[in-house]
Amino acid sequence: MKKFNTSPLSGMQELLPTEQAVFDQLKQNISDVYHHYGFLSIETPIIERTDILFAKAGGDTEKQIYMVSKTAESADSADQALRFDHTVPLARYVVEHNNDLAFPFQVTQINRNFRGERAQRGRFREFYQCDADIVGREKLPIAYDAKVIACIHDALKTFNLPKMLIRISNRKVLAGFLESLGLSQKTSDISNVIDHAEKVSTDKSTEALRKLKLTDEQVNKVTAFMFTHGNYEEVEAKLKEIMGDISPVAEGLAELKTVFDILTQKGTDNCIIDFMIIRGLDYYTGTVYEIVLEDYREIGSISGGGRYENLASNFTDQKFPGVGGSIGLTRLFFILREFNLLNIEAKQPIDYIILPISANEYEASFELANQLRERGKLVDVDLSDRKLGDKFNRASKISDYAIVIGNDEIISGQYKAKNLKTGDTIDP
Amino acid sequence: MKKFNTSPLSGMQELLPTEQAVFDQLKQNISDVYHHYGFLSIETPIIERTDILFAKAGGDTEKQIYMVSKTAESADSADQALRFDHTVPLARYVVEHNNDLAFPFQVTQINRNFRGERAQRGRFREFYQCDADIVGREKLPIAYDAKVIACIHDALKTFNLPKMLIRISNRKVLAGFLESLGLSQKTSDISNVIDHAEKVSTDKSTEALRKLKLTDEQVNKVTAFMFTHGNYEEVEAKLKEIMGDISPVAEGLAELKTVFDILTQKGTDNCIIDFMIIRGLDYYTGTVYEIVLEDYREIGSISGGGRYENLASNFTDQKFPGVGGSIGLTRLFFILREFNLLNIEAKQPIDYIILPISANEYEASFELANQLRERGKLVDVDLSDRKLGDKFNRASKISDYAIVIGNDEIISGQYKAKNLKTGDTIDP
Repeated sequence: MKKFNTSPLSGMQELLPTEQAVFDQLKQNISDVYHHYGFLSIETPIIERTDILFAKAGGDTEKQIYMVSKTAESADSADQALRFDHTVPLARYVVEHNNDLAFPFQVTQINRNFRGERAQRGRFREFYQCDADIVGREKLPIAYDAKVIACIHDALKTFNLPKMLIRISNRKVLAGFLESLGLSQKTSDISNVIDHAEKVSTDKSTEALRKLKLTDEQVNKVTAFMFTHGNYEEVEAKLKEIMGDISPVAEGLAELKTVFDILTQKGTDNCIIDFMIIRGLDYYTGTVYEIVLEDYREIGSISGGGRYENLASNFTDQKFPGVGGSIGLTRLFFILREFNLLNIEAKQPIDYIILPISANEYEASFELANQLRERGKLVDVDLSDRKLGDKFNRASKISDYAIVIGNDEIISGQYKAKNLKTGDTIDP
Repeated sequence: MKKFNTSPLSGMQELLPTEQAVFDQLKQNISDVYHHYGFLSIETPIIERTDILFAKAGGDTEKQIYMVSKTAESADSADQALRFDHTVPLARYVVEHNNDLAFPFQVTQINRNFRGERAQRGRFREFYQCDADIVGREKLPIAYDAKVIACIHDALKTFNLPKMLIRISNRKVLAGFLESLGLSQKTSDISNVIDHAEKVSTDKSTEALRKLKLTDEQVNKVTAFMFTHGNYEEVEAKLKEIMGDISPVAEGLAELKTVFDILTQKGTDNCIIDFMIIRGLDYYTGTVYEIVLEDYREIGSISGGGRYENLASNFTDQKFPGVGGSIGLTRLFFILREFNLLNIEAKQPIDYIILPISANEYEASFELANQLRERGKLVDVDLSDRKLGDKFNRASKISDYAIVIGNDEIISGQYKAKNLKTGDTIDP
């Protein structure tokens, strides 16, 4: 009889070992690719000062922060909370340690963050984010924006997903475009309409724009703008058509061209410029990107990020421009499972299970296990005193092969591994 | 100018990237060995229900628990807290998922736990624990105790530490011994004296025993007992000398013999039985062990654990006996660094840094980077527009080799990697 509710708290992911192995493999794949691109790992504390967190958080995020206090003494701990993303702790880290870092500082954080969101299926309160960021001192060439995107795209390639599409935009283009229409004051409201345009009908979007008191011509131009996408030449031509003089967006376009060209040079053939990409958060200042699955747009973006020129401006007067992106692995894992897209090989966590018949065969079993482990195999030795049938039953749940060791095997020195599905035997 | 205190909170570990790489390597080593021994990874939420945590915590631990609440709504979150170890969440996990697990369930958790301890140098409030546990259903043969200890010892071997010593005891021996002296009522107080005996003089220990109102004979016997250590035969002989009739400790001795014999069969030559080992926490029921560095006893134990017959008795009537051990990696890393014992190769985090002279060489640089990455190398491409000298300066901080790519290299197709310390060049 259970005495307690033993389910995990709502909004927390808890996996069975076989699922966990797949999750960990995906996490490892991301980490490997980030490292191969030269990103260095850091790990910041999960508990941070609230003034650090609140300096950057705003609106909804602020309400979702988990405050932390000790049971015994609350005086010195009332100002502590759980981090809600990796970017704020990164800003603090860069300011704190900048004299010991080599800039541009290419850094990855793959760890859990915490947000007390409304409980909802597929939304998590504790979740892994796999961030890759490049932080410069004083300045950071735009080429790095392409590097971050290429790296994250390569990481996702290891997932064996259906065709991905990288959608890139640039906040400076939007800003220049709205300025040319005399709409700079309404940038944030219009961004919001564009940000949601994909989830509603075009009529709804134009209606929302009209509500912002745009003239018919402005509505038409903004609508034409937000549906603009394609390769660089196509997008530039389209902007000329809409704007006539494109000099107000020249700086943003030049950045977009650099990013797009580098991604193409790197052999990324599934990249488009797409002005519907906004990225809700307001700290992006230039490049913004999202990666989607072309045939599963309903999933939403599987990665996103962009350029933030003022990473640490809340903490210091020094300038640390950065560009970064993130894969929300907990949510992504959940969704891929829902859509049956977890195409990663879910191999059994153990390679061989050794089943000594009795304690007399322990020594030989340990010896064989050590030999197999030295060859990189994952080996379990079953030391239980249960019946062989029960042992086989357990073995089949976590391994493809069992090796029975009895007196005969010890005398002959011949060990055979039995495939627990087919019954075939092989040399281990 | 800094606007905020950007140091991490007191009691939190925050490392520079090169230190982090060493820490991560140690963590990976432990994880690899645990996996090779057939332990499966799980990850439980960091935030748990307080009733789950308080069901097991007691005394000091309870006072150190971090409570969690949301800023906005505190109603539904007042009953949440951060876990303080892996064992309590494991008990909950086993009860919750037991129908989906293969028993004996060999499980590892390598993750952070949280305790609001008094701030003190070398004591951490957020810390990694690397646990390996084996949980049975109804019963779990004693041989598994040896397996856990051997596995953790093998994991620590990868650290290249000075000579380790495994010290094993068994709570049943202590219980039987005290019962034979009519001292069962004072087990907890006497355990406490033994647990601290190593940190004080023998006089202090005997004085503490006298304070518990033991007779002179009892004091002498308990003192002789707690200084008993050696291989199985030596310990058995010594017990006979102290006790005369050793039947009250027969069950515990038999378990000790099994564990000791298996460890010896597995080739572990640095293992002793040592009745001074208690392990403070009271949930152990049989085997207890600690691993120390023979020539650095002052460091204290670098791993410890034992058998707990009633893992989940707070949560269910079902019986789940277990045995486990843990490496407190955050503290161990700190101490090894203090004692200059971090003998793990601190290799540069990046294998090659490619330095294109200008944007004209980006394409060739990306191509070379991809080729090197496919061969498993960690490669960074420096896209900054700084002077070559500055680029070399950054490169030397994170890599041993730089590959300059200019027009000449592209024409010749010959790339050379320059050793940033010696100036020698090699083929990358």
